[in-house]
Amino acid sequence: MTDLERLMAIEEIHQLKACYFRCMDTKDWAGLTAVFSPDGELDMRGEAADKSKAAEGLVHGATAIGAFIRNAVLDLVTVHHGHMPEIEVTSPTWAKGIWAMEDILRWPEGGPIKTLQGYGHYHETYRKLDGAWHIQTSRLSRLRVDIT
Amino acid sequence: MTDLERLMAIEEIHQLKACYFRCMDTKDWAGLTAVFSPDGELDMRGEAADKSKAAEGLVHGATAIGAFIRNAVLDLVTVHHGHMPEIEVTSPTWAKGIWAMEDILRWPEGGPIKTLQGYGHYHETYRKLDGAWHIQTSRLSRLRVDIT
Amino acid sequence: MTDLERLMAIEEIHQLKACYFRCMDTKDWAGLTAVFSPDGELDMRGEAADKSKAAEGLVHGATAIGAFIRNAVLDLVTVHHGHMPEIEVTSPTWAKGIWAMEDILRWPEGGPIKTLQGYGHYHETYRKLDGAWHIQTSRLSRLRVDIT
Repeated sequence: MTDLERLMAIEEIHQLKACYFRCMDTKDWAGLTAVFSPDGELDMRGEAADKSKAAEGLVHGATAIGAFIRNAVLDLVTVHHGHMPEIEVTSPTWAKGIWAMEDILRWPEGGPIKTLQGYGHYHETYRKLDGAWHIQTSRLSRLRVDIT
Repeated sequence: MTDLERLMAIEEIHQLKACYFRCMDTKDWAGLTAVFSPDGELDMRGEAADKSKAAEGLVHGATAIGAFIRNAVLDLVTVHHGHMPEIEVTSPTWAKGIWAMEDILRWPEGGPIKTLQGYGHYHETYRKLDGAWHIQTSRLSRLRVDIT
Repeated sequence: MTDLERLMAIEEIHQLKACYFRCMDTKDWAGLTAVFSPDGELDMRGEAADKSKAAEGLVHGATAIGAFIRNAVLDLVTVHHGHMPEIEVTSPTWAKGIWAMEDILRWPEGGPIKTLQGYGHYHETYRKLDGAWHIQTSRLSRLRVDIT
């Protein structure tokens, strides 16, 4: 790949991840689902609030991932921000990357949890399918979580 | 446009928006005004703290926009951060984009409001004039605002 | 330099600074030290919590800088995010830049300070040595610090 092709791939992956965050926070579930490869993988096992349900945090397939996230945040006000991407394009159709992240989740009034504010990193791979980059795998690791 | 020209335009627009945030938070009003096109438009109507004054949130012209922002935040300590830009260059002299944003405003002691912390998105267009990109239109939509 | 060379340098410097933040927050001290030029300079004098020790905030040399940061944050949970880079490549081997930043430091239980949350800008220069960009000088200025 040329330097220009690498830079283009990096910019497209930056915008792909931007779409992931924006679609989640604006509750655009079709847009969110389309970010992932059809056989993509989301791994939130390490960060389950309820450790007895950690195994449920491994989800396969774009449709299931979209439904999983929708179910998790549908009733919440969420803010997700990504920072400081380190994208390495390993072939014309594969890349890997790390993003720093912060999320703020607010539950409806009356529940046991009011707000969760978390910080960590996404560890991801990306795959180009039919001319567009998708998230192939995504795993979240946390630095810290504050719950009120 | 070539891919390289598009990438250059995107990088210049990223730095333009960085200048907008930095000039606002360091109270460099001349620098902030210069970010906008002479006939630029700022639309904060949807996010007015006082809804009865929402109409005042639509401002035309770089000079008026600079004065509007200066008036709004002169006595405040402000922090504005932008994230996850999605810039689409639609011609050699026009582009559009979305930015996730967070702002933290702190008022002087003794007033009714102490701190506002907000989250949302800027929806913007950009225009290249005399070789430099400017913000042509900017509209803010909020996900959430916390006031203490 | 060509536009493509400039864009490549900017992307490499973005990832360099990403590594700085990630290595600090994941306590990868070797990785953090390698971010700096062997004769690099870190200037935190303006932001010392204890003004009587401000002079100690000027540190020279990658090894000393790595040890200084390690000593400052070893027992803390830290989150550092950078935003909105304005990188200017001034030659094939030199660049300068500004980053908006936010940091959240949490001390172990029982001390006088619980949490510091700060906002400001890094003012930096970069140097390419043996084919890789390094931070040559870094100075932090604050907009605001909240201590609880």
